[in-house]
Amino acid sequence: MFDRARSWVYSRRGLATLMNLILLDPADFVAEGRVVLRDRRHAHVRQVHRAAVGDSLRVGLVGGQLGSATILALDDAALELAVALVDDPPPPLAITVVLALPRPHSLRKVLQQATAMGVKRFVCFRCARVEPSFFTASAARPPGVDEELRLGLEQARDTVLPRVEVHPQPFHRFLAEVWPSLPEGQVLIAHPEPGAAACPRAVAGPVTLVVGPEGGFIPAEAARLRELGGLIDLGPRILRVETAVIALLARLS
Amino acid sequence: MFDRARSWVYSRRGLATLMNLILLDPADFVAEGRVVLRDRRHAHVRQVHRAAVGDSLRVGLVGGQLGSATILALDDAALELAVALVDDPPPPLAITVVLALPRPHSLRKVLQQATAMGVKRFVCFRCARVEPSFFTASAARPPGVDEELRLGLEQARDTVLPRVEVHPQPFHRFLAEVWPSLPEGQVLIAHPEPGAAACPRAVAGPVTLVVGPEGGFIPAEAARLRELGGLIDLGPRILRVETAVIALLARLS
Repeated sequence: MFDRARSWVYSRRGLATLMNLILLDPADFVAEGRVVLRDRRHAHVRQVHRAAVGDSLRVGLVGGQLGSATILALDDAALELAVALVDDPPPPLAITVVLALPRPHSLRKVLQQATAMGVKRFVCFRCARVEPSFFTASAARPPGVDEELRLGLEQARDTVLPRVEVHPQPFHRFLAEVWPSLPEGQVLIAHPEPGAAACPRAVAGPVTLVVGPEGGFIPAEAARLRELGGLIDLGPRILRVETAVIALLARLS
Repeated sequence: MFDRARSWVYSRRGLATLMNLILLDPADFVAEGRVVLRDRRHAHVRQVHRAAVGDSLRVGLVGGQLGSATILALDDAALELAVALVDDPPPPLAITVVLALPRPHSLRKVLQQATAMGVKRFVCFRCARVEPSFFTASAARPPGVDEELRLGLEQARDTVLPRVEVHPQPFHRFLAEVWPSLPEGQVLIAHPEPGAAACPRAVAGPVTLVVGPEGGFIPAEAARLRELGGLIDLGPRILRVETAVIALLARLS
């Protein structure tokens, strides 16, 4: 859960973030088992790890295996590594998070933290209480999303990038056009109202977890969702979306 | 869990925060059932709620009951409310969080989010992998702590402030001097190592949950803790302290 060999890295937004794994892309390989890095990962290894030639680092190939890397060369310009990938990534969560697009600050946290917890598919939708401006925020566009996913993978030592979809059409069209693409399995809708069941624990098999906007679903939306799955809640306390998602994933997994 | 009647407020650090409850202090009362506010709560009601005379707001007295308040007067200078307190706060969690003092950014999140989840006692300690500078950070001093606790209570519509202790003495002295003050009950130590059990679910009765530093306990500390309780973990994924605390509380509660 925590780790001894952790250190800090600063993301583009300037927030300190843990980096327990150096995530490699196929383009980083200059030869079989040989990698050269010149970007924030190079800076991180120099400045935060304060590593030297001969030291060993934990690495993983995006979409592939994990392993260790030995530093062959390190100077102002570049970091050269000999890489051996031997371990499989940790198992994913079989939970699809279907989320009313939250404000950018919350979206970033949900993406990063739920990725660290093992979620592999996020489906963001629009409904009455979602601000239209959230859809044009940089946090909801590919570079912003990708950064949070990679930070989550680095944190949890995983390599498998989640798929993130952002659907701006009206809610009834989302249900007609996108909902049928969701995987088979139990549908749970986090919506606190009389009659909602307590969130179940340790659910076996795939789950589609629907999480509404901070202001909640309007009655017409809740009525449509009630036809698609069971309503659940986490008790009487009102939690932020990012806190609720972590708590729901922890209960369900 | 979420709420329809939410709105935004900006804390002193400039972060957008939900305020589902206006928290009142005894000093806010000018007469029986009559309150006058002139601070951030006044600004919030004017600018964010955009409330008017006659509107109703959700309020709670620190340490006391919750209820509704009717706006009697609202202008540039002050907000006057008629207050009726009738509801009890939500039940607390019977979980004492005993936490290696995290870096300030994480401490603020843990305090606010775990308060929203119902924790009523935080005991922060020092150990080998805690930076001494964390103890002098404003986040670990009373005004910084108090702000996060209040934001957590406002979020979750609770009124009962948690108790937060920050113990800077060495770990062995903490165990000798402070540990005996912890409540009776099950002791669970979040420490991932071979032999740690999966975090139990829905534990009845009081729990003392010990969470180590981001770098983990050193072997001598882990050995001492093993004499005091059971080691648990959340699986192979490494989570940030603030994520792990929420996930552990959701599993245990």
